[in-house]
Amino acid sequence: MGQDQNMPDDTDIVPDDEQLGQEEAYEVPQTDVHLSREFVQALQRALKDEDETLILEMLEELHAADVADILETLSSQQRRKLIELGSKGFDPEVLSEVEGEAQDDLYEHMPNDLIADAVTELDTDDAVYVIEELGDEDREEVLRALASDDRVAIEESLSYPEDSAGRLMQRDLVSVPEFWTVGQTIDYLRSENSNIPEDFYDIFVVDPGHRVVGTVPLSRVMSSKRAQTIISIMNDDPHIVDASAEQEEVAYQFTKYHLISTAVVDSAKRLVGVITVDDVVDVIEESAEADILALAGVREESGLNESFIEIVKGRFTWLFINLGTAILASVVIGLFEATIEQMVALAVLMPIVASMGGNAGTQTMTVAVRAIATKELNASNAVRILNRELMAALLNGGILALLSGLVAMIWFKSVLLGSVFAAALIVNMFFAGLSGLLIPMTLHKLDIDPAIASSVFVTTITDVIGFFAFLGLAAIFLF
Amino acid sequence: MGQDQNMPDDTDIVPDDEQLGQEEAYEVPQTDVHLSREFVQALQRALKDEDETLILEMLEELHAADVADILETLSSQQRRKLIELGSKGFDPEVLSEVEGEAQDDLYEHMPNDLIADAVTELDTDDAVYVIEELGDEDREEVLRALASDDRVAIEESLSYPEDSAGRLMQRDLVSVPEFWTVGQTIDYLRSENSNIPEDFYDIFVVDPGHRVVGTVPLSRVMSSKRAQTIISIMNDDPHIVDASAEQEEVAYQFTKYHLISTAVVDSAKRLVGVITVDDVVDVIEESAEADILALAGVREESGLNESFIEIVKGRFTWLFINLGTAILASVVIGLFEATIEQMVALAVLMPIVASMGGNAGTQTMTVAVRAIATKELNASNAVRILNRELMAALLNGGILALLSGLVAMIWFKSVLLGSVFAAALIVNMFFAGLSGLLIPMTLHKLDIDPAIASSVFVTTITDVIGFFAFLGLAAIFLF
Repeated sequence: MGQDQNMPDDTDIVPDDEQLGQEEAYEVPQTDVHLSREFVQALQRALKDEDETLILEMLEELHAADVADILETLSSQQRRKLIELGSKGFDPEVLSEVEGEAQDDLYEHMPNDLIADAVTELDTDDAVYVIEELGDEDREEVLRALASDDRVAIEESLSYPEDSAGRLMQRDLVSVPEFWTVGQTIDYLRSENSNIPEDFYDIFVVDPGHRVVGTVPLSRVMSSKRAQTIISIMNDDPHIVDASAEQEEVAYQFTKYHLISTAVVDSAKRLVGVITVDDVVDVIEESAEADILALAGVREESGLNESFIEIVKGRFTWLFINLGTAILASVVIGLFEATIEQMVALAVLMPIVASMGGNAGTQTMTVAVRAIATKELNASNAVRILNRELMAALLNGGILALLSGLVAMIWFKSVLLGSVFAAALIVNMFFAGLSGLLIPMTLHKLDIDPAIASSVFVTTITDVIGFFAFLGLAAIFLF
Repeated sequence: MGQDQNMPDDTDIVPDDEQLGQEEAYEVPQTDVHLSREFVQALQRALKDEDETLILEMLEELHAADVADILETLSSQQRRKLIELGSKGFDPEVLSEVEGEAQDDLYEHMPNDLIADAVTELDTDDAVYVIEELGDEDREEVLRALASDDRVAIEESLSYPEDSAGRLMQRDLVSVPEFWTVGQTIDYLRSENSNIPEDFYDIFVVDPGHRVVGTVPLSRVMSSKRAQTIISIMNDDPHIVDASAEQEEVAYQFTKYHLISTAVVDSAKRLVGVITVDDVVDVIEESAEADILALAGVREESGLNESFIEIVKGRFTWLFINLGTAILASVVIGLFEATIEQMVALAVLMPIVASMGGNAGTQTMTVAVRAIATKELNASNAVRILNRELMAALLNGGILALLSGLVAMIWFKSVLLGSVFAAALIVNMFFAGLSGLLIPMTLHKLDIDPAIASSVFVTTITDVIGFFAFLGLAAIFLF
C-alpha cells in the first residue's frame, strides 16, 4: 500500500503544479494481455536450462491465476521442474487456483514449509480449501506449522459441512457497534493496529451479542458526514445466510438479489464471517458445469485436468448403466423378432422412432432440469408448463411424423407402413415430453439430483416406448 | 439515506448511554425468507378482489427480483391485472429483472410514462436492456419522454454491438484526477452536488485525457490517511476492458482474476464506464445456460417463460435436423437388409452399438465443449488430451465390449455373433472418442459455437459408424 506519509489526520493538501507534473511518470496501462504462447515457450526454455533466476523473474510478472494455468498446461515433467525451481516465487493464491493433476503435483512436491507460509497469507476460505485438499500427512505437517489462531480459524471452518456457506466464508471482516458514527468508523478503519481485511465492500453493524442488525455499503460510509450515526445510514434488512446453508442456495440468493457480500451467522445468529461475490462466481460456474457434465453422464468434478484413471472410472459407470438400458430396449425388439423377419423394413426404420423420441425427451428434460436448478419450475406452475410441453411435443411430433411418414411411404412403397411409422412417432414424442418433465420433477421431489439421473430414465423410456409402439403397431396392422 | 443530521464535518460524537439504549428499537433481522406460497396466494386473492390498496401495500415489501418472479408465476390473466393495478408501485428494477412472456406482457401493458420514469431510475446497463427489449413504437415514445442526457447515454450505449462490454457497462462512476489526495477524494464523495452512483467499489484515477492510470478499491481509500496522495495507494496495473470486447470474454476475466469491477474504455482508451461483478454473474449464468440448452438441441434463450410458439419453433429445428441424420443412419441399415433378413438377431443388437457410441461420444464432446468455453483446452495441450481420450475410449470400450459380447453370445447362443458385436462396439467407441474431441475443436476453429453444432455431428458419426461396423462385420464374418 506504500503508506510512506503519516501526516496528521484530516489535513487537506491543495494540489500544486509539482504534483500535477508527476503524471508524466505514470504510463497508461494497456488492456489486459493474456498469457501469450511466446511467454509459455520462453518459460519452457528457462525450465530446460534450469535457469532459476530467470524463472523467478518471469513468475513475478504473473497473476496467480496465470501461474495456475501454466502449471495445468505444462507436461508433468516440466511441471515438477517448475515447482522445484519456482514454487518459492509463487503467489500464495496459486495454491487455491490450481486444479486437477497440476494441483496434486503442486501439493505433493512443494515443500510443506512453503505451503504453510502461503496458507497463512490466504483468505480463510482459500486456506481451508487448500488444507482440505492436501494429503493426510502433509495436512498434519502444514497445520502444525501454522500460527495457533490461523489453525483454530481453519479448524472451525472445517467443522462446517462440505459445500456449506461456512466453508466459503472469509472470517476477516469489519463490524462496528450500532452506536458508532461515520467518523468513528473511518477512524477505526484508519487505525494501524486494527485487523482489517485488504478488500471489503460492506461494514456490518452488530449488537452487543454480535448479532447483525444491519449493513452499510462502504460507498455510503464514504459519502456521509462524519457526524452521522452508522445506524441512520445502515440497511436494516440485510441479507444474512446461515453458515450451514448450502453453497448453491447462497449462490442463488447472490444472483437473484445482485448481492456483493453477505453476512454469515452461526446457529446462535452471531456474525462469524462474510461471503463475497467473487467466491460465489466460482460456485455458480461449478454448479452449472456440474449440471452440464451430469446431463452428459460424466461424473461431477470431471475436467481436462483429471488423471487418466479417474476419467475412465468417471465415465464407465454411465456407460455401464447405458448398456443395461440399451439391452432392455433390445429385449423389446427381441419380442418382435418374428414381425421383423416378415418385414426387414421395420428394422431399418425403428431407430428413427427411438432417436426422435430420445431427442425430444432430452430437450424437455434439459429445460426442466435447468428450470428446477434456477427455481423457475415449482409446484405452482408445473401443471401449466406440463400442458404446454405436451402440446409442443404433439405439435412437433405431428409435423415430423407427417414428414417422416411420407419418407417411409415413398421409400418402402407402403402407405400402411408409413402410417404406422407416423403414429408410433407421435406416441413416442408425447411420452418424451411427458417423461422429460415429470422425471426430473419426481427426482427432485425425492431429493435426487435431476441432472445426474434424469437422462438415463428419459432415454430408456423413449427407447422402449419407441420400439414397442412401432413394432407393436406394425404387428397389429401390417400382417 | 436519511441524512437528518448535518453537523459540521469531522466532529466525533462520543457514544453515550442514550444512544446505546437505542439498540432495543432494532430487531435482529431474520435469515432471508423466500416468497412464500401463502404470500402469492394472498396476492392472488387481492387481485381477484381488485383491492388496489392491498396490492400496492404487498408490493412495497418485495424486492424487485421477487416481483419479477411473481409476474412469471401468475397466469397471464392475473399478470395483466397485477400490471394494471400495481405497476405504479413496481420497483424500477422489476423491468430489468422480468423475463419471457411476463416481460412481453409487462412492457406491453405498463403505461409508457411509468416505463420512462422507471428507465430514468435504472442504471445505464439496465436502462439500455429495457429500451432494447421494448417494441418499436413503445421505444420511440419512452425515449422521447426521457431527459435528454439520459437519452444520449442510452443511445451511446446502444451504439455498441449486442453482447459487447459497452452494453453491460454502467456509465455512472467515480473518477478522480491523479494529483488528488485521499482527503480531497472523500470530500468530493461527501459533496451534495456531485453525481455519484449509489454503490461503487473502485475509484478510477484518470489523467487529463481521461485515460485510466489506476484504480483504488474503496476500502483502501477508507483505511488511508487523508493526506496521502491517491496515486501512492492506487493499483497502477488495473484491469481494463474495451467497450467493444465480448461479454463472455469480460466474464472470463472477472472469473479468472476474481474482479469486483473493471474500467471500460473506448477506442481512444478514454474511460467511458464501469462493469461490476453482479452484471457479470448474469453473463456467466446465461452463457453456461446457453451451452447446456444448446447441447440438448434447445435454441438459446429458451426457458420456461417462453411463449408456446417460440418453444415449438426453437425445438423443431433440432428435431428436423435429427430426423435427417436418423434417416441417414437408416440408409446405412438399409444397405444391409439382406444380411438382417438372414439373421434378425442383428436388428435386435444393432441399437446397442449405436447407443453406446452415442453416449461415449457425448461424454467426450461435453467435456471438450466446456473445456473450450473455459479456455482449458487449447492448441498446446490438444494432442496430449486427444491421446488420453482415445485411450480412455478404448479401455472403457474394451471392458464394455467384453461384457456385452458375452451377453450377446449367451442370448443368441453364437460365439461368432458375440465377437462381431464386441468388435463393432470397440470400433464405435474409438470413433466416438475421436469425434467427441475433434468435432468441437474444429468447429471452434471455424468460429462456429461448438455447443450448438457438435452434438448433431457426433451422434451422426456414432450412429453411422455403429450400424456400419456391426452390420458390415456381420456380413463378412457370419455368412
